[in-house]
Amino acid sequence: MSFTIQNALIPSDTGYTPVDVQIVDHHIHAIAPHLSTIGTPIDGHNKLLLPGFVNAHTHSSEMWQRGIISPLPLELWIAELYDFAPLDPEQVYLSAVGTAVETLLSGGTSVVDHLVMIPGQELETIAAAVRGYRQVGIRAFVAPLIQDQALASGIPTGGCEQKYESYIRTTEATLALVEEAVDRFHRPDDGINLLVAPTGLQLCSDALFEGCIDLSDRYSLCRHAHLLETKAQKLLAQEKYGCSAVEHLQTIGYLGDRTSLAHCVWLDDADIEIMAKTRSTVVHNPLSNLRLGSGIAPILKYRQAGVNVAIGCDGSASNDSQDLLEAIKIGSILHNVTDLDYHHWITPHEAVEMAALGGAKGLNLSDDLGSLTIGKKADLVLYDLMNLSLLPRTDPIGLLVLGRPVNVVDHAWVNGKMIVKDGEMCNVNVNDLKQALCDRSQWSTKRQAPSVAEAEVGYRSVMNLPSIPQGYA
Amino acid sequence: MSFTIQNALIPSDTGYTPVDVQIVDHHIHAIAPHLSTIGTPIDGHNKLLLPGFVNAHTHSSEMWQRGIISPLPLELWIAELYDFAPLDPEQVYLSAVGTAVETLLSGGTSVVDHLVMIPGQELETIAAAVRGYRQVGIRAFVAPLIQDQALASGIPTGGCEQKYESYIRTTEATLALVEEAVDRFHRPDDGINLLVAPTGLQLCSDALFEGCIDLSDRYSLCRHAHLLETKAQKLLAQEKYGCSAVEHLQTIGYLGDRTSLAHCVWLDDADIEIMAKTRSTVVHNPLSNLRLGSGIAPILKYRQAGVNVAIGCDGSASNDSQDLLEAIKIGSILHNVTDLDYHHWITPHEAVEMAALGGAKGLNLSDDLGSLTIGKKADLVLYDLMNLSLLPRTDPIGLLVLGRPVNVVDHAWVNGKMIVKDGEMCNVNVNDLKQALCDRSQWSTKRQAPSVAEAEVGYRSVMNLPSIPQGYA
Repeated sequence: MSFTIQNALIPSDTGYTPVDVQIVDHHIHAIAPHLSTIGTPIDGHNKLLLPGFVNAHTHSSEMWQRGIISPLPLELWIAELYDFAPLDPEQVYLSAVGTAVETLLSGGTSVVDHLVMIPGQELETIAAAVRGYRQVGIRAFVAPLIQDQALASGIPTGGCEQKYESYIRTTEATLALVEEAVDRFHRPDDGINLLVAPTGLQLCSDALFEGCIDLSDRYSLCRHAHLLETKAQKLLAQEKYGCSAVEHLQTIGYLGDRTSLAHCVWLDDADIEIMAKTRSTVVHNPLSNLRLGSGIAPILKYRQAGVNVAIGCDGSASNDSQDLLEAIKIGSILHNVTDLDYHHWITPHEAVEMAALGGAKGLNLSDDLGSLTIGKKADLVLYDLMNLSLLPRTDPIGLLVLGRPVNVVDHAWVNGKMIVKDGEMCNVNVNDLKQALCDRSQWSTKRQAPSVAEAEVGYRSVMNLPSIPQGYA
Repeated sequence: MSFTIQNALIPSDTGYTPVDVQIVDHHIHAIAPHLSTIGTPIDGHNKLLLPGFVNAHTHSSEMWQRGIISPLPLELWIAELYDFAPLDPEQVYLSAVGTAVETLLSGGTSVVDHLVMIPGQELETIAAAVRGYRQVGIRAFVAPLIQDQALASGIPTGGCEQKYESYIRTTEATLALVEEAVDRFHRPDDGINLLVAPTGLQLCSDALFEGCIDLSDRYSLCRHAHLLETKAQKLLAQEKYGCSAVEHLQTIGYLGDRTSLAHCVWLDDADIEIMAKTRSTVVHNPLSNLRLGSGIAPILKYRQAGVNVAIGCDGSASNDSQDLLEAIKIGSILHNVTDLDYHHWITPHEAVEMAALGGAKGLNLSDDLGSLTIGKKADLVLYDLMNLSLLPRTDPIGLLVLGRPVNVVDHAWVNGKMIVKDGEMCNVNVNDLKQALCDRSQWSTKRQAPSVAEAEVGYRSVMNLPSIPQGYA
């Protein structure tokens, strides 16, 4: 399975250089102008070659609810999500395929799926997602989303005593389930990786975090979680621990160079220092942070403090697309309004580095992935620069990041295997996929989410919002 | 030129209804289920019909610099823009065509082009853009960008005495030029409209604004300008007038129900009241406001105060795409981080109304355009809901606004004339366009903008930024 990409543009110190790139045995073998052709030749003329990006945080099965959830903050949004969540494994398979396709067609060759599991069918859920990712050929990092506390306990109490139902499964049973999933599905050499992934402080006990640390150590697994996505979670952490969430995670030992934490909107300077010191990774999900009104994560501060930053789309119920190029664009330009000094702003080249190498670092794979470096694995994307959305010709990476590219992924390879060819998926019939998604869904009229109405009164009170206006639907 | 769209989904009070829509003599003749077929039938099954959006503020010729300008605030960005600006009329024609194509393929049937003119070839510039818009068939609002003060005077002085070169043309000559352009090109019945359009307070005298008011009154022209895009402009207005820019525009009589003002980032509550009272329109350009670090416009406040809001892409040098759906998405979800109360957040349906009816109102055309209303002109867009980026089926408008649609415009009509058919432009060969854009451009390596370096020292000083670090390139 050797091939040679001929005459493709790659970024260099002085701008862009057309080069040939030889791929041998799944790896980048050589990069230079005028190389001999090994294996199949691939035409790279007027194309840009970049390392594949990492969609570093998403929830694939939320694809079934994209476009439909009301404009609500996370704590109420999640109530609506759960009101309409029931899925079957076939749907999980289809949304994994859909997520992989959209990720690949926007430059991503890896996806971290913080996978919501069907109650009672947890292993079937994971099997279905893994089947989808294997079929498409994307490099997958499946992070089964676990918790051991009931949903209602995720909203701060404001000091009022609250009683919550216990969660449907014990902490021990949940950890045993993750261990079984690791045993059955964790095959890094085959492109399928499992992560330990408590959903976050808001719904998890210390025992669950500590059990995950143990699994992570015993099986060499990366660690993942949500962290301080909303202001309410910051309040909750103070109520729960009497210290910041980051301090607490450090104390129990969850942080480290194979830990990636999604959102990280509400960290203060002391928290940021801890993130840097522990070499933990922030996964920036700019679009869902806007849609849910969570806030603007202090990404420029992370970068200045030396914290590694990766980029994710988040699930399609809170950012209703899996287009990484959109997340990269908004995730870089958004921060220009947070700092008047433009010397700190993220350039398009830096944004690409965050999405590729930053993503690889967050998965402890920067020796293998994330840059066009001889010896690294061939997870590569070739962009068609003659697409109207990337013309006229100026700076290819500037166009890719700051424009709004449409159908620009020409070829993509994962581990040296071609997954996208001439803009088409190699292993998925997209028309069949569309039909299957259509057949299992219907146009929704205005739906009502009873759990939102229930949660709303308490939420508005603790967040100091005025009572619900009369007549508000 | 009659036709009937059959069985298309349109939004209704209870959700979505499949209807037939008859178009007769350029107008919407009837909307109801099961109508008889007048003229050509158009299949609307699994498609969404909406009024065409208005790209309510752009600068078409900036397409030649998209992807290339460094991350800089407006006052330095514009120095770089001007360093590389020289164009010829053929380029202006091509970028007008490119802007029209991208606007149409993202749901826009009207474009407001605040057109930068080639010095010494002003009427040729307008003629070239008009030629492009006529060819494509989009409804065009050409707003020749005029000023009568030199570029350097757009940066606040911070109290230091400054001497500026005089502008290349007198105020009188500029007004005469606009009047000649109106005489030659203003043909509303033919889809080509001229606007008076001083660039903004930062580079225009009161005499220029007053001359534009006079032309606007005599020829029934809409009025356009930039307004308080940056913090620096707010400082400048105080230096120039000793009052807010909005107060000053009200005093000289520029505001009103046919005046649309781009950006409006730095208005305070008193300014917002004036905007509402005068029934002026805010054109929201969320993406360029982010890219240039200008800020987040207080759009939720405008809406609460009853100010009409339209949506624009702005020029491609400051938002490097002309995709209206992207501007609509970001222009609605962005504001969720500015107000904790989600009852104020913009819904997808409201976002569509801003982009369609809000745009029409800003051009004093809400009786003719902007909604699916019997008797209005047939500026319509039909979206293909079976596109992967809009599946699975949930809420069609939610998917369109909150997703990241790719190639979803199936058909578009302007004044009842088909401009897009089955996703393809009817009157433009896009392959020829791409080749022409490619032939007239080249991949740029790191370029240097001497005017930025010149302007930077003064800008950093007046904006209280630290001096330029040594070794900063």
